[in-house]
Amino acid sequence: MNDFIYDIPVRVYFGRDQLHHLGEELKKFGTRVLMTYGGGSIKRIGLYDRVVKEIKDAGLELFELSGIEPNPRIESVRKGAQMCKEHNIDVLLAVGGGSTIDATKFMAAGACVDFDPWDFLDPAKRVKCERALPIVDILTLSATGSEMDCGGVITNPETRDKYGAMYPPLLPKVSFLDPTNTFSVSPYQTACGAADMMSHIIEVYFNTNTDLYMLDCFMEGLMKTIIRFAPVAMREPENYEARANLMWASSWAINGFINGGKCQAWSCHPMEHELSAFYDITHGLGLAILTPRWMEYCLNEQTVDKYVQFGVNVFGIDATLPQMDIARKAIDSLSEFLFGTLGLKRTLPEVGIDREHFDVMARKSVGGRVLNGFIPLREEDVKKIYEMCMS
Amino acid sequence: MNDFIYDIPVRVYFGRDQLHHLGEELKKFGTRVLMTYGGGSIKRIGLYDRVVKEIKDAGLELFELSGIEPNPRIESVRKGAQMCKEHNIDVLLAVGGGSTIDATKFMAAGACVDFDPWDFLDPAKRVKCERALPIVDILTLSATGSEMDCGGVITNPETRDKYGAMYPPLLPKVSFLDPTNTFSVSPYQTACGAADMMSHIIEVYFNTNTDLYMLDCFMEGLMKTIIRFAPVAMREPENYEARANLMWASSWAINGFINGGKCQAWSCHPMEHELSAFYDITHGLGLAILTPRWMEYCLNEQTVDKYVQFGVNVFGIDATLPQMDIARKAIDSLSEFLFGTLGLKRTLPEVGIDREHFDVMARKSVGGRVLNGFIPLREEDVKKIYEMCMS
Repeated sequence: MNDFIYDIPVRVYFGRDQLHHLGEELKKFGTRVLMTYGGGSIKRIGLYDRVVKEIKDAGLELFELSGIEPNPRIESVRKGAQMCKEHNIDVLLAVGGGSTIDATKFMAAGACVDFDPWDFLDPAKRVKCERALPIVDILTLSATGSEMDCGGVITNPETRDKYGAMYPPLLPKVSFLDPTNTFSVSPYQTACGAADMMSHIIEVYFNTNTDLYMLDCFMEGLMKTIIRFAPVAMREPENYEARANLMWASSWAINGFINGGKCQAWSCHPMEHELSAFYDITHGLGLAILTPRWMEYCLNEQTVDKYVQFGVNVFGIDATLPQMDIARKAIDSLSEFLFGTLGLKRTLPEVGIDREHFDVMARKSVGGRVLNGFIPLREEDVKKIYEMCMS
Repeated sequence: MNDFIYDIPVRVYFGRDQLHHLGEELKKFGTRVLMTYGGGSIKRIGLYDRVVKEIKDAGLELFELSGIEPNPRIESVRKGAQMCKEHNIDVLLAVGGGSTIDATKFMAAGACVDFDPWDFLDPAKRVKCERALPIVDILTLSATGSEMDCGGVITNPETRDKYGAMYPPLLPKVSFLDPTNTFSVSPYQTACGAADMMSHIIEVYFNTNTDLYMLDCFMEGLMKTIIRFAPVAMREPENYEARANLMWASSWAINGFINGGKCQAWSCHPMEHELSAFYDITHGLGLAILTPRWMEYCLNEQTVDKYVQFGVNVFGIDATLPQMDIARKAIDSLSEFLFGTLGLKRTLPEVGIDREHFDVMARKSVGGRVLNGFIPLREEDVKKIYEMCMS
């Protein structure tokens, strides 16, 4: 069991009636606020007006940057960093989902340096981020967990690169999690978010490091929560209980707590980043397609125990069946959840992906080496997994 | 479902080989360190020497206050606060279990004011603690969770008062959780610690507020962890996996996370505080005796659902049985765990408590009013529960 450091000093205001704290929290960091967001959804749900009012009422000066893309692009990050410098911004306020928060994190870092913020992400340079402007966020989509972690993923469309990086200064200072801000999330985006969260947990749960039983129980609880409430939220978008459970689960699926001392590489995320870098598909959708195939590919006599634990504790599969049967039923149950209950597309061709870039995507996903995850994956393994996703 | 604020900025170093970070962490707060501890146990296990060496190597100035009691007394708190003032202490380092950490918290608060630190606790005054010296701790007993919360309980033997209070400035800045530091904890103290943790969870779990399913799953995971590993740690004191699970569970049982939006009063803790205030018994032991009787007293047609959930999810009781049968089996299973597996005493007479002070203890435990917990408890209800503990 490895040692670990637990350190998540994000302050979270959770619930319906918390936004009156926004002004007081922003003020702690200064008076000049850059508010970042994506398209018009925050205007449609009335959140934009409410936020502007809170900022004005607090006597703060507001600057705005809109148009941050899903799979956010380095160009937006550059623009935001530039604005911070020009307007002498004190604090960034991201209003949106993981894409907006991720982009805002690297704007906050870019604002403090003279070089291109892509250098924080580019594996060839990977300049360490030593400091960043403070970040506050208001979450509108339960999925990536960016609201409670210090990482982000940015795309460079010119080079078809999509890289993630984690730096402690990028941890948000304060996050506002109001489940009602996700009432307008479509059933499809709700499903993609649920798949993303499931993947965050599965990447940690299926792990060869021994770790705390307690954390495995927590992960099983998170997965049961997602499996229980994602379909409710799809059916009844304004079901507060469902939205609240999904929202808090999204944060805890990836804020680092469940990792404990596990320090093994992730597998499905790097494989998926290539899909969305090349085809700009929704991250959660790509993960949904990959995850059951990856699980199938990794199943063997050495790894079967974890599948059994997963199948019995998460899906309630009969523990008296033979181990391999439980394992296969567990994969089937997960597939049924993702492709049946959530209604997500099952294959790469269905989302417009063919074999054209398999070679380069496989090479990039393992970073030219071996992906040392639950089982080690080489370039040819990743290609086989992509191939399994063709039908 | 109530709104809530999540805010636990404690940095935790978890594991065997983390104490080399002690110097760097203490230095962040200054150079003059007051180290507090109880009896000689930290010397016996070699921890004292190691800590002194780390402090000296870091070039810090060390002051010491030993002799902090189990059920720590206000007199020790006063002495510590005085020492902080006299020696111009920058940071307090508590090395011990919950008693040492609790006492140290109120020393840190007392160091910043001119009045008696008992005023922070005395319900008649209850002066709000606005600031405190920074606190770092090294935990040696998994039980109270003081290492990750902002509360403490102090006894005033002169008046036979025992009061707890929570103030954000008392949250430790850094906690060192090394499971090997609990290897020497006796089976009996391990059992008392497990009972204390179970109670922390049960006080939140049995709650009439609707709250997040996700948090109920976490609580069930914590309880299963304690039930699984407490007997292992009693049998094999140097089992790292067992000690590690208990240690991390102790923190998460009471750091506030599992509460979510639940804001209902606790029941067994105030009833127990009177037992240990009057008879100086171990807190966890008192809780073990009270909890199953309190559960029995609260069981009715309105409350039965929670018992069923508890019985099925924590003890694996057959969900197809009649509800009341499951509930009773759940209470029996908990009793069997506490009095059978953990071997704790089952009745008040066995720990030397008779009916002499029932009236005054019952009156004090409800604070002269009603204890608005899982079911409301009046003075006469508490007396009945004490009475149930007589056999």
